[in-house]
Amino acid sequence: MADKTESQATIPPDTLTQQIGVLTRREVEARILAPVIEALSARFDRAEVIEVIRAAVVAIARQQGGELAQAMGGCGSREFMQSLQYWTQDDALQIEVLEQTDETLRF
Amino acid sequence: MADKTESQATIPPDTLTQQIGVLTRREVEARILAPVIEALSARFDRAEVIEVIRAAVVAIARQQGGELAQAMGGCGSREFMQSLQYWTQDDALQIEVLEQTDETLRF
Repeated sequence: MADKTESQATIPPDTLTQQIGVLTRREVEARILAPVIEALSARFDRAEVIEVIRAAVVAIARQQGGELAQAMGGCGSREFMQSLQYWTQDDALQIEVLEQTDETLRF
Repeated sequence: MADKTESQATIPPDTLTQQIGVLTRREVEARILAPVIEALSARFDRAEVIEVIRAAVVAIARQQGGELAQAMGGCGSREFMQSLQYWTQDDALQIEVLEQTDETLRF
């Protein structure tokens, strides 16, 4: 475990979401994970493989979201709204904001 | 299997390498696969997990390379040289070409 901690400390910060946007990132991930899941299912129990990978992907998404919130400077509706630029990037998504206050965000 | 063939036929063509470059694509893949491999290793035999994923990743890379060659219009040194734009994209890599003919490419 000492080795792992040490090697992970040298990984550069993850700025991929800001570089390529959330939806492109998800497409890259899906296009590698789908055939990996197929290959694993030929060796191990498919339901178990999916259960383990689902939990891992949820944890990674939360971690990426947490890092993004930190990069945005907070978890308020303003910071969240600013973070949506990484969803709409490259016309991946269109968002129409209907109402935005400190307490409310409708879109 | 009929369902699988049908659903795969509806997946749009993969243009991610041209969009974000090879090295950024590999970084996205590594950042999702590393924690997925960790999670799988906690449930299954780690050596077996790595063996299966290694084979799958090699197959996917070959497929992506084949699709890129097709998009480039061939497998000659000229087409290969043109495809290197997806490695050098966003200053990810610098390449100095020393010699380029139909038969030779040194860089």
